[in-house]
Amino acid sequence: MIILGVDTAMRCTGYGLLKVEGDCFQALDCGIIKNAQKLPHSECLRRLAGGIRELIESYQVDVSAIEGAYYGKSVRTTMILGYARGSVMTVLAEKNIPIFAYSPKEVKLSASGTGTASKNQIAVILGTMLNINIDTIEKDATDALALALCHANRISRCGPDIFTNEPQ
Amino acid sequence: MIILGVDTAMRCTGYGLLKVEGDCFQALDCGIIKNAQKLPHSECLRRLAGGIRELIESYQVDVSAIEGAYYGKSVRTTMILGYARGSVMTVLAEKNIPIFAYSPKEVKLSASGTGTASKNQIAVILGTMLNINIDTIEKDATDALALALCHANRISRCGPDIFTNEPQ
Repeated sequence: MIILGVDTAMRCTGYGLLKVEGDCFQALDCGIIKNAQKLPHSECLRRLAGGIRELIESYQVDVSAIEGAYYGKSVRTTMILGYARGSVMTVLAEKNIPIFAYSPKEVKLSASGTGTASKNQIAVILGTMLNINIDTIEKDATDALALALCHANRISRCGPDIFTNEPQ
Repeated sequence: MIILGVDTAMRCTGYGLLKVEGDCFQALDCGIIKNAQKLPHSECLRRLAGGIRELIESYQVDVSAIEGAYYGKSVRTTMILGYARGSVMTVLAEKNIPIFAYSPKEVKLSASGTGTASKNQIAVILGTMLNINIDTIEKDATDALALALCHANRISRCGPDIFTNEPQ
């Protein structure tokens, strides 16, 4: 099973692809889709949707894990985050990829056993578990891999036939 | 020039297509894309994106007018409205359709000359101007036609080469 984790934002979206075979997890790829500040939202969304579509096609993604529950700091930033998530969710839905949402706390809990671990601690654990050099990876890409890992751990516990819990 | 007005929402999105030839405006089509309450957001977004894409292709849309500035009543409804708008904006951007955003006040001002007109008053004015029977049209479809009309009036005043003012 191949899981695509997406840590969505208008200006910098992290992605991480995790291959799961039994109890063995392998990071296939990770990175960021970056949009310059000067770009209008429509162009950011076009690039974001195109990037996610390309990843799904290149890696034959089975399932996706995105961030849920987190809102912006203001009504305006919440709306902009909504635009970006809506764009990503549309591509996933059009490609028939099931969407699972995890809160930042769930992601931390899954990787470290505590919901209060720092982002840096999570990155170090990820580096060890997946045997990757986190110093060469952007923070948003590590966050996306952590989302994919969170879903992989849930499947390990509950089996693959879990209900989708996409953001509502 | 053909203008697509979209009054976006997750459960009921209104659309209206307006043909502009000089000072002559003609309503080509209008309606709603409805999503049942029980449908998950991913399925709503898939249907919404598919519906907007079909309208653009069927009517050879040149430009779009969507609602800007309006936010939801809570952080959760703002995020959900953001999902839906992000989906619509992604399709418009991928089809290279310029996006113009207008606040509810601008739409009212454009149709009636006052920013405080009721939705019903706007609908009556629209019915007269476009020679359509508003009693047979859903409210969200009338709102979408009013958005398209707002952009048509702006073009009449300023010419077609106005800068996009998509939602930020």
